Amino acid sequence: MRVERVEVVGDDLEALVGAIRAALEGGVDLLCTSGGLGPTHDDLTMEAVATATGRALALDPDALAMVEERSRGLRQTPGVARRVREKQAMLPAGATVLPPVGTAPGAALEHEGAVVVVLPGPPWELQEMWEAARSEPPLAALLARGGGAPERVLRAFAVPESRVVAALGPLDPGAWERLTVGICARDAELEITVRSAPEDAWAADALEARLGDELGAALYSRDGATVDEVVARLLTAAGQTVAVAESCTGGGLGARLTARPGSSAYVLGGVIAYSDGVKRDVLGVDPGLLRRHGAVSAPVAEEMAAGARDLVGSDWALAITGVAGPGGGTPEKPVGLVYVGLAGPDGVAAREHRLRGDREAIRDRSAALALHALRVALEAGRAV
Amino acid sequence: MRVERVEVVGDDLEALVGAIRAALEGGVDLLCTSGGLGPTHDDLTMEAVATATGRALALDPDALAMVEERSRGLRQTPGVARRVREKQAMLPAGATVLPPVGTAPGAALEHEGAVVVVLPGPPWELQEMWEAARSEPPLAALLARGGGAPERVLRAFAVPESRVVAALGPLDPGAWERLTVGICARDAELEITVRSAPEDAWAADALEARLGDELGAALYSRDGATVDEVVARLLTAAGQTVAVAESCTGGGLGARLTARPGSSAYVLGGVIAYSDGVKRDVLGVDPGLLRRHGAVSAPVAEEMAAGARDLVGSDWALAITGVAGPGGGTPEKPVGLVYVGLAGPDGVAAREHRLRGDREAIRDRSAALALHALRVALEAGRAV
Repeated sequence: MRVERVEVVGDDLEALVGAIRAALEGGVDLLCTSGGLGPTHDDLTMEAVATATGRALALDPDALAMVEERSRGLRQTPGVARRVREKQAMLPAGATVLPPVGTAPGAALEHEGAVVVVLPGPPWELQEMWEAARSEPPLAALLARGGGAPERVLRAFAVPESRVVAALGPLDPGAWERLTVGICARDAELEITVRSAPEDAWAADALEARLGDELGAALYSRDGATVDEVVARLLTAAGQTVAVAESCTGGGLGARLTARPGSSAYVLGGVIAYSDGVKRDVLGVDPGLLRRHGAVSAPVAEEMAAGARDLVGSDWALAITGVAGPGGGTPEKPVGLVYVGLAGPDGVAAREHRLRGDREAIRDRSAALALHALRVALEAGRAV
Repeated sequence: MRVERVEVVGDDLEALVGAIRAALEGGVDLLCTSGGLGPTHDDLTMEAVATATGRALALDPDALAMVEERSRGLRQTPGVARRVREKQAMLPAGATVLPPVGTAPGAALEHEGAVVVVLPGPPWELQEMWEAARSEPPLAALLARGGGAPERVLRAFAVPESRVVAALGPLDPGAWERLTVGICARDAELEITVRSAPEDAWAADALEARLGDELGAALYSRDGATVDEVVARLLTAAGQTVAVAESCTGGGLGARLTARPGSSAYVLGGVIAYSDGVKRDVLGVDPGLLRRHGAVSAPVAEEMAAGARDLVGSDWALAITGVAGPGGGTPEKPVGLVYVGLAGPDGVAAREHRLRGDREAIRDRSAALALHALRVALEAGRAV
């Protein structure tokens, strides 16, 4: 199965009906909607799906019971409560109700050979209800038909796109024409997506081999694993732990390291050393060093990493200090200048980066560069 | 001006041309594209815009000079470099080149009364180039025509949607029919967007007054300011500082507090206390308390907040400890149980929350609840 189209439509009945009709007339096998199932006047998706598929909108008793059950304990205004609940139990006639994860039920129905699945907007509700919808007969039958080209995702670190163009140049045109290759640059990485029919796996293998030859260790992932996943696997395999010391990222690296379930096995914590006072008093960075080199410097990044490692008692510690901007830049230390420090069992080191972008891009990329620094050290099986 | 439609299209020439044609035939005044301007074979936007508007795709010498200038210093493979740069300098004939912020130039052109602006995908490149494009003649003329209904955004904290429905019930229908009202629930908040023609501002005023009467202090923002902005303003006005002590959010609250430029004026830093060891050894949480109540408890949240405030020397400190899941829940302490601690000049307190959602939703909402706890305390002008 292939995503044909993604469209964002406002809370406008005519626009919603138009978009749903256009998708169904376009001959899709599956149409999923997301959002617009709430209790207020601007939640119009069920009505739009009913109109677009020529059905009545009717109160579904099962759906109403589910909404009542899920709304128990919510402090709702009496009188309004009934209206609000009934609103969320109105489904296109004949649709299968999908039990709510929040308070809003979804729906699944068939229309002229296509399956329509109506899901709520909050991502976690949508995901859980999608999993349940997969076993509903119309969707289950469609998914069982399967199809679509298998996909492999490769990731390369710190490689310009032109090097991938160069790497792919000598590839056999017979292989190239059997593949659909997408290349996306993001956060100091290239994500290379290769799609082929199952019988053309040889062509994808040839492309992967070419990239491996050309890019070497920079091609750090061949199974789609992100740098976050690779670091988690390496730390788990080594039975080691990590701490952070963050200045310009303000906690973003820690948040990213702990985004994965089970990360408490290898993340101990760390220090958000946004002010120089915290760098000095909590991490133990030498005040003389701060004075002489400034907070954004390699020696301070090293002391931050070493200080976090000592304080927390981890095997590794990552430090980030930089000028995220938009203010605070100087000719010597412009916006985008970032140092990543890494302390490990064998010592400490720091690396300078000069990043382009706005505050958010610089902070995100700094965290990505720190993860790659740890990945490289763990892959080498020794401290940098 | 009103957003008519947002569509995501894959790297497929036919699909891109179809989407651009459909938008232009739909009679829009302005079509912006984002992405697909890179140097690889799957970057097809310029070609698609040229095809859809019946123009040739031609090498633009000015664009080439800009790409050369911006690519200086990139380590590109010789031989490939020229091809890659020329690829990024191919524009629809007659289009105005938009100077690149990254390496890829954009373009602006007119087609049958509509303006087409072609922008790159990375958000910071897009935003900066959009600002520059605004002064280009075709777009400047369109924007000068202006139009569209002014919008006001109100935000309410910890209010169920049904209470807004109840509040709006008694509103004069004559006012209601002159307004377009959108209600979006997210992270323990409702965002209420009210649009009206300039001459109907009285109707928007009436709605705002109704909501103010019904929701009281829960309607915490009437100028669109987010809780992040309100907290930043309040801390700045009070000349006070904040620190964090984060367990299950792992740094996400600190990252959010420091996302705003200039936040170093009021954010000092804090501790990511993901392990119990860090809670004990760095924040000074009493080991007996950890044993008796567990890390996810009100007393531990209070000690974390007090510990961070002492350690960092801030006026305020926010602590978060909870079960973000998906694992780690027990019947007594289920997934979604979160305590937010707040330490301030007058003492310390903690509040229990029981949140629904997946790991990401629980972490995001925990950070939002912590910000609201600080907002409420700052608004009260005293510690909780």
